[in-house]
Amino acid sequence: MVLARVVGTVVSSHKSQKIEGIKFLLLEKIDPATMKGKGDFIVSMDSVGAGLGEIVFYVSGSSARYTDVTEGKPSDSAVIAIVDYIEKDGVYTYEKNK
Amino acid sequence: MVLARVVGTVVSSHKSQKIEGIKFLLLEKIDPATMKGKGDFIVSMDSVGAGLGEIVFYVSGSSARYTDVTEGKPSDSAVIAIVDYIEKDGVYTYEKNK
Amino acid sequence: MVLARVVGTVVSSHKSQKIEGIKFLLLEKIDPATMKGKGDFIVSMDSVGAGLGEIVFYVSGSSARYTDVTEGKPSDSAVIAIVDYIEKDGVYTYEKNK
Amino acid sequence: MVLARVVGTVVSSHKSQKIEGIKFLLLEKIDPATMKGKGDFIVSMDSVGAGLGEIVFYVSGSSARYTDVTEGKPSDSAVIAIVDYIEKDGVYTYEKNK
Amino acid sequence: MVLARVVGTVVSSHKSQKIEGIKFLLLEKIDPATMKGKGDFIVSMDSVGAGLGEIVFYVSGSSARYTDVTEGKPSDSAVIAIVDYIEKDGVYTYEKNK
Repeated sequence: MVLARVVGTVVSSHKSQKIEGIKFLLLEKIDPATMKGKGDFIVSMDSVGAGLGEIVFYVSGSSARYTDVTEGKPSDSAVIAIVDYIEKDGVYTYEKNK
Repeated sequence: MVLARVVGTVVSSHKSQKIEGIKFLLLEKIDPATMKGKGDFIVSMDSVGAGLGEIVFYVSGSSARYTDVTEGKPSDSAVIAIVDYIEKDGVYTYEKNK
Repeated sequence: MVLARVVGTVVSSHKSQKIEGIKFLLLEKIDPATMKGKGDFIVSMDSVGAGLGEIVFYVSGSSARYTDVTEGKPSDSAVIAIVDYIEKDGVYTYEKNK
Repeated sequence: MVLARVVGTVVSSHKSQKIEGIKFLLLEKIDPATMKGKGDFIVSMDSVGAGLGEIVFYVSGSSARYTDVTEGKPSDSAVIAIVDYIEKDGVYTYEKNK
Repeated sequence: MVLARVVGTVVSSHKSQKIEGIKFLLLEKIDPATMKGKGDFIVSMDSVGAGLGEIVFYVSGSSARYTDVTEGKPSDSAVIAIVDYIEKDGVYTYEKNK
């Protein structure tokens, strides 16, 4: 899975019927050592109710179809967790409520 | 899923029988922060009737077989949505009808 | 799918039994804007009888097993189309018979 | 599979129900020639009880669902082995107990 | 599939039960135009008895489970062929017995 920040949303009225009702989040991948954005963006289907600015991780590939929201749907990326904290080499590089 | 602009088409008369009748779009990946093309191209099967110049997102991998058009076919990329707008950090970086 | 030029072949006498009789093409990925090779090579299983110098596109991942030639085989890349022409922004960047 | 060092953990209280109880390791990919970190990080599900600082390899894609811990779950990366040693060109570049 | 040279082995005594008895090869990807290593390494499961120094190609993704050795196992890379020769633009860039 890959760590990213929710930076926005993508809206489409003309799309595959199978993905009606799904929220498309715009994610920016982050470097967990610095928590800075990498300028690398992806569109991911939300399965956990993630909000703008939150740090999440998403799953790619066929496993993106293994959430309750995306089962059987043409998805290659789904947000599956909102991150509380990241610990690297014994130090917290990210704490949600700080 | 990945954001891209439809920049053209690819035509083949000699191909796998399974992909007869499918439209092959030439896509250029874009940076949603600047909306500029990245000079990185992919051939994607159209499942939504996307036209030249439109901003779309496509699905990769096995999920590219999960559209009505590509089911059971040797596809690793399918356009599944025409984008209306992209909102990043509270600002619209793209609006289709503007 | 990805555009590439057939630049050669790879021959193996000692291999998985399942891939006996399949032709392994050496492909060089191309930039469809300039039609130049990118110096990035891949070995792909031929499902359409592509020849040296031809522009093709290949499918990657599990979908590479969805051709008549590669079904049930350990393949992650299969050539599925010989390209006739590529149109980008209203201009032909490639025409086979020219 | 890809070689990496366990550099930390990622904790999430709000996540897909399917991944409750799984430990999320933060891995840094390494260069096995120098054993140095590449500054490239991934979140991987632990299936072997790997600890901080250990060299492991992980499996990506659909095969990340083929461990006892991750079966049927939305996982695209699972640690499947703790490495004892790496031999490259006849020389040990890594030995765990040294 | 991707061309690589067998440069070593990776040994693990603590691993997923499913991959007991499999040989883990350390591969370095090569550029088939120059036959030089790219400094990019991967761990691959051997299905053909490849030896140190040999040029091989491996299959990635779910198809890495389609060899006799790796069926049903958490594998995302399997060596499926030992290369005899590579012909590029009418010239042999590699011949095994030379």
